Amino acid sequence: MLSKAALKYINSLQVKKYRHLHQAFLVEGAKSVKELLLSDYTIEKLFVTEEFLGKSTEIKAKSLTYELIDEKDLTRAGTFSTNNAALAIAKMKAPAFFAPDLSTLTLALDDIRDPGNLGTIIRIADWYGLQHIICSETCADFYNPKVIAATMGSFTRVNVVYVTLPEFLKKLPADLPLYGASLHGQNIHRLTLQPTGVLIMGNEAHGIRPEVESCLTQLIKIPRFGKAESLNVANATGIILDNFFRNG
Amino acid sequence: MLSKAALKYINSLQVKKYRHLHQAFLVEGAKSVKELLLSDYTIEKLFVTEEFLGKSTEIKAKSLTYELIDEKDLTRAGTFSTNNAALAIAKMKAPAFFAPDLSTLTLALDDIRDPGNLGTIIRIADWYGLQHIICSETCADFYNPKVIAATMGSFTRVNVVYVTLPEFLKKLPADLPLYGASLHGQNIHRLTLQPTGVLIMGNEAHGIRPEVESCLTQLIKIPRFGKAESLNVANATGIILDNFFRNG
Repeated sequence: MLSKAALKYINSLQVKKYRHLHQAFLVEGAKSVKELLLSDYTIEKLFVTEEFLGKSTEIKAKSLTYELIDEKDLTRAGTFSTNNAALAIAKMKAPAFFAPDLSTLTLALDDIRDPGNLGTIIRIADWYGLQHIICSETCADFYNPKVIAATMGSFTRVNVVYVTLPEFLKKLPADLPLYGASLHGQNIHRLTLQPTGVLIMGNEAHGIRPEVESCLTQLIKIPRFGKAESLNVANATGIILDNFFRNG
Repeated sequence: MLSKAALKYINSLQVKKYRHLHQAFLVEGAKSVKELLLSDYTIEKLFVTEEFLGKSTEIKAKSLTYELIDEKDLTRAGTFSTNNAALAIAKMKAPAFFAPDLSTLTLALDDIRDPGNLGTIIRIADWYGLQHIICSETCADFYNPKVIAATMGSFTRVNVVYVTLPEFLKKLPADLPLYGASLHGQNIHRLTLQPTGVLIMGNEAHGIRPEVESCLTQLIKIPRFGKAESLNVANATGIILDNFFRNG
């Protein structure tokens, strides 16, 4: 049985202000909680169903403290329409300092507002082995439950740093390639891209802001063969990253 | 002012049974309604705000009948959390008969349940110029408002046909390549794929069903460079299609 105080605390973590006040965030569902238990995040509270507990080797192996909860309370407490597995409250980590360099490709996001898009992009970045994402301050909050859910566990492996993007890009070494996705860019099928430097993806509706675009060294685009006006930004990110990694 | 009867009718079209009973479906938001007005779909009812009306050249050009509506009523009637533009009720079209052949690439979807995924896949297919999608009968309904919304207007250009997928694939010519996306497939970066035949994408959690997989000629996969367990199916579809079209 979930206490009123616990329910109130969990609900408060749906709001950015309270997440940052408590330095804590929600992780929901079997897949995400499983990945959380395998990570180095500190767990403040762990609510699990008997079924999830039975399947989890990590809870026993790490002697973690947990509270048993039924599916009804779990669904009532969290943001999922149904949840028959687990909900955890984890402590935020200070993002690792990170400077892009020539040894790797870094993703930078300019004003990606939709939490689902940010989460999906983190998952794609993790698929291609990117360990760092630079976000403009206007991007969705990394710790938003919808972001965490959409990463499908990849939030435990990708370091996300928030910066003032134009200033950040201007301070990078002059020889670092800075690619931006734009409908006016060069056709990626005609380029031999190497996974080094920074790839910047822009806002869902407006693309990359002019003050960011002016910092870039090259604009690139996905060639279009049909009539759709644009692609979803998470889809476009996946396709462009795949083009960077196919020449390795 | 929206009548009670109109509101009830609009609400009923959120349910598949009533959509098929009335042979009608909802189209919501500026982008989707704009594309609908440019298409050959028959419009049964059109609700627009003064602002949308002022911007639309199609309504005047085609002398379309419309009802003015305010943002509050529009949001109350439809499925969007906000809508300040338009909502239309359009008549379904009988899907065009279609047989995949060697002249083109056709997408086939096996049990894609999530409406957002199906809509996003239709948008991606339209970007790459695919005009037909074959869906197993268990896929989300093409006319679901969430599917229509996620296509961002591409529902007007892509023909979606529902079939019993294994039977359909078995009847295709023996020389037609049938590709299936699978974690056990061949690395698409090492293949020179040509956009001809059929590409089959499977269910979000379980992939392609065994009875469908047994019909295929080749399994293919997106190589993984990091640690995410999988990619979202719409993302994977975009990346694979891009690999098919990069060798043209």
